[in-house]
Amino acid sequence: MSPKLGYIGLGLMGRPIALNLLKAGYSVAVYARRDASLTAVTDAGACDYPSAKQLAQHCDIIFTNVSDSGDVEEVVLGDNGIIMGARPGSIVIDMSTISPMVTRHIATQLENKGIEMLDAPVSGGTQGAIDATLSIMIGGKAEIFEKVLPLLQVIGKNIIYIGDHGAGQVTKACNQLVVAQSMAAIGEAFILARASGVDPSKVRQALLGGFAGSRILEAHGQRMLDENFEPGFKAGLHQKDMGIVLQTAEQLGIKLPGAELVSRYLDQLVEQGGAELDSSALVKQLEALAGIKIKT
Amino acid sequence: MSPKLGYIGLGLMGRPIALNLLKAGYSVAVYARRDASLTAVTDAGACDYPSAKQLAQHCDIIFTNVSDSGDVEEVVLGDNGIIMGARPGSIVIDMSTISPMVTRHIATQLENKGIEMLDAPVSGGTQGAIDATLSIMIGGKAEIFEKVLPLLQVIGKNIIYIGDHGAGQVTKACNQLVVAQSMAAIGEAFILARASGVDPSKVRQALLGGFAGSRILEAHGQRMLDENFEPGFKAGLHQKDMGIVLQTAEQLGIKLPGAELVSRYLDQLVEQGGAELDSSALVKQLEALAGIKIKT
Repeated sequence: MSPKLGYIGLGLMGRPIALNLLKAGYSVAVYARRDASLTAVTDAGACDYPSAKQLAQHCDIIFTNVSDSGDVEEVVLGDNGIIMGARPGSIVIDMSTISPMVTRHIATQLENKGIEMLDAPVSGGTQGAIDATLSIMIGGKAEIFEKVLPLLQVIGKNIIYIGDHGAGQVTKACNQLVVAQSMAAIGEAFILARASGVDPSKVRQALLGGFAGSRILEAHGQRMLDENFEPGFKAGLHQKDMGIVLQTAEQLGIKLPGAELVSRYLDQLVEQGGAELDSSALVKQLEALAGIKIKT
Repeated sequence: MSPKLGYIGLGLMGRPIALNLLKAGYSVAVYARRDASLTAVTDAGACDYPSAKQLAQHCDIIFTNVSDSGDVEEVVLGDNGIIMGARPGSIVIDMSTISPMVTRHIATQLENKGIEMLDAPVSGGTQGAIDATLSIMIGGKAEIFEKVLPLLQVIGKNIIYIGDHGAGQVTKACNQLVVAQSMAAIGEAFILARASGVDPSKVRQALLGGFAGSRILEAHGQRMLDENFEPGFKAGLHQKDMGIVLQTAEQLGIKLPGAELVSRYLDQLVEQGGAELDSSALVKQLEALAGIKIKT
């Protein structure tokens, strides 16, 4: 029999994912703290519950997709959280991007009640969620991963089991670190070009054909050339994710100087009111440092 | 009539390029400061001259491919240099990676004698030179570029005219900056993974499928996982190229903090005797900082 699904958190990512699950014929129950988020999914056939606890009482597999570590803790471990309603043997799949340490803590609490958990953060943005082409990075028990894989294949494409609890979150942190530093490097290259009187769009074109070629150069490079900072992926969220990177590094006692550097750019950008811009707008900080604009 | 070619500098890049020109049926004269470099190309039909000046007297188009700014200045502007022998209307194509400022100076000196110049640094390494798949970034007059394009198509694949004198060198500097910073970012990601108890090879695999995917992650990421630092592209040369980046930035009065950071890693690596390693060995500096190795 098809499992009964629950989806908690119907934001820019959660809503299209829940809709894809409904479209695939699954029964989906939903809970969202903001009523406004619900209409699109209840119109598509989802039933809604007034709390995560009540939703959990009626579901076999429960997705969570909220903003940060504290939100996941509340919705899973809180007084009206999943842990209060879920049956032993049910599975929580957390698609939020949160701290690997917090993930491990939550997984342990759930395990004490016989509830399984996977961390399953994604990359690919709202468009990837709509198109069901998300990359999904999985941490948790391999046998639980195998069990839910058909479900994940409904909503994503590049689905990789990484390792034990938290491993998906660590991978996502690595992803965000590489993306942020790559954007900053491309920004420096374009600034060097412009300051030298060379057209940065030609530089982008030349570099794409060689070893420096990357999806970030392709997509975010073009954004920088056009000064098009419509999100995409918001600077405020990337700042939060770099916070997870640095906090994790600190807890592990390791130094990541490049991550620290770009994290400061995102902090500055957000302080200056840029939280809602695409995170590639961090190039503005580099432009300010150099006293020169990439776009003429 | 087919132009008579000259090739000066028969190192790891120059030799295979000259051989490809010979293979395509061109008459190629050569000059190398080290006799040992000559045999392979004279065996293939090149005639050699005892100085750049004498070579230039017999050639229409002269390639230079030497180590740094000073070498190009000597071989082009020196007492026995190209400028002393070349006829007005002949063309110098400098494939070395040198300072954009020095390039502009040399181009001006040559122009005063009616000699044309293009800066044409390449990326793709020795293998790209052998396979004739080099990326070539061109600065100089567009009409001179058009004239020699068929010749460049014999030795490269992704051939892009960027702009005026020095624009090719600026683009190469941008390329080296992006490559170095991308390698450092991937190194940080792998260190974060390993310190978290997560397999970095799984992280590489997951990231390749998403927005963080790049050729550097593909190739140099694998090198880091294997601790395989057989060059490839030598750290000593990448250090030199980052020196060009920072010197150019300084002359332009701009700050490039990411370039400064990775440049220090390359300096330290070379100081510690790593000049002949692949430049991705800069990750050793990050491992030392973190007190952890990527490869178990």
